Amino acid sequence: MMYAKTLPIGVFDSGVGGLTVLRALQQELPHESFLYLGDTARLPYGTKSQDTVIAYAKQAASILIERGVKFLVIACNTATATALPSLKKQFPEMAIVGVIEPGAKAACETSINGQIAVIATEATVKAQGYQKAIHQIRPNAKIVAESCTLFVALAEEGWLDGDIAEAVAERYLEPLLFAEPEFKPDTLILGCTHFPALYQPIKKVAGEKITVIDSAHSTAKVVAEQLKQLNLLNDSHQEPHTHLMVTDAPGRFARVARNFLGKELLPHQIELVDFH
Amino acid sequence: MMYAKTLPIGVFDSGVGGLTVLRALQQELPHESFLYLGDTARLPYGTKSQDTVIAYAKQAASILIERGVKFLVIACNTATATALPSLKKQFPEMAIVGVIEPGAKAACETSINGQIAVIATEATVKAQGYQKAIHQIRPNAKIVAESCTLFVALAEEGWLDGDIAEAVAERYLEPLLFAEPEFKPDTLILGCTHFPALYQPIKKVAGEKITVIDSAHSTAKVVAEQLKQLNLLNDSHQEPHTHLMVTDAPGRFARVARNFLGKELLPHQIELVDFH
Repeated sequence: MMYAKTLPIGVFDSGVGGLTVLRALQQELPHESFLYLGDTARLPYGTKSQDTVIAYAKQAASILIERGVKFLVIACNTATATALPSLKKQFPEMAIVGVIEPGAKAACETSINGQIAVIATEATVKAQGYQKAIHQIRPNAKIVAESCTLFVALAEEGWLDGDIAEAVAERYLEPLLFAEPEFKPDTLILGCTHFPALYQPIKKVAGEKITVIDSAHSTAKVVAEQLKQLNLLNDSHQEPHTHLMVTDAPGRFARVARNFLGKELLPHQIELVDFH
Repeated sequence: MMYAKTLPIGVFDSGVGGLTVLRALQQELPHESFLYLGDTARLPYGTKSQDTVIAYAKQAASILIERGVKFLVIACNTATATALPSLKKQFPEMAIVGVIEPGAKAACETSINGQIAVIATEATVKAQGYQKAIHQIRPNAKIVAESCTLFVALAEEGWLDGDIAEAVAERYLEPLLFAEPEFKPDTLILGCTHFPALYQPIKKVAGEKITVIDSAHSTAKVVAEQLKQLNLLNDSHQEPHTHLMVTDAPGRFARVARNFLGKELLPHQIELVDFH
């Protein structure tokens, strides 16, 4: 099956976090249209089991594919870590990219000593997505992954800097980055799409010697390359557009989105999709 | 319909928070059995819309009623605020008690100046459950309700005291309790079942002059009264038992439950219920 080049790129996440990926995609691919779905009725995915996340991700992907997209981006680390193989199997004709492989690749290219720290949700850590992806590229890499659950709430609440954000970052990151004599990472992967919103306090704790990798930009570059290879880049002169959909509470989505998309949204710009 | 006295009392919440209510019920009613359901596949309810919470609460109540319970306790403020009337309508033969009316009644009895602060989830604040329940009893009461989203994540992470918990409590509570010249509350309702786990830092900020009301204990007393009135108290000599069920991730539930139930649970003590 050959998809029309003018179709949008489908992007989904459990909620608002994937907007950091959408933003990077819009910057990398300014001529493309996007159809974004935030599964806000079931968010967060990060504290749920593999089976449940796979079921939710299949529903989210189906909604986008039924609407018509030419390419699918899983803008959620948890869904990528748990559901990417299942989605590729269920939708064999659709090119699907998740956020983990691009982030892992960028980390492998950046790290000098091969010691890489990953922060993510509980589900992503448990699924070992980054560990597997990094070991595919650098089999001898030393990787430690820790969940930082409170970062999600901080990012959604918009407490992106200041004393509390810094204290939380210290509590999570100091034991991971500096406490182990056997593990001296020079690279830190932000393995949850919420975390780039907290880049400032995270970078402050990590310091100058540790490179912080945000999967969003690496993913946008991989999507651009694959679209080119598949001859799916939009070459029409139509104005590109982005349409946003949620499965629940567009008002809250619009309010919280500001912390991730970097600009204001209004509730009427967001379509409520009924999945019941 | 007359229910058997030996049947358990059904209790449900979106996840672990309702365990603070279960604990109060077990203390108040030591001869009763309990069947608890945590809807962990869809947690949290507190950031979701009214329609979605009603749909989830109906499913949770149905699971308990199909298993066989003699009484239903909604151990979740958000579900009480949004779904209690719908549940009473759908299950007219079942006695159903939520956590809001008992908490509102306790606050009205405690407050001297009639100025009452409420902290809750976004959805509970929006549904104005406490405002309505308090005004039923004290029509002239002055009420201000604020959401404290980060408390839920702090409680689940087990960061129940120390610098971060206190800083978060200060940031939420000082503007609510002390900043308004027109509002000088003498009573603070913990309007989310997660919040009793953070009693220490909340009480530290509130100080001696403000009484902190925990709905769990007021609810347990109301349930005991109603069971007596309905002649449903268990008077058999069977050993009472508590059975715990979740819709997802029993391992995480067991780990996090400690912060709410005050004792250890093991994953094999928790039944996974498939609701798909």
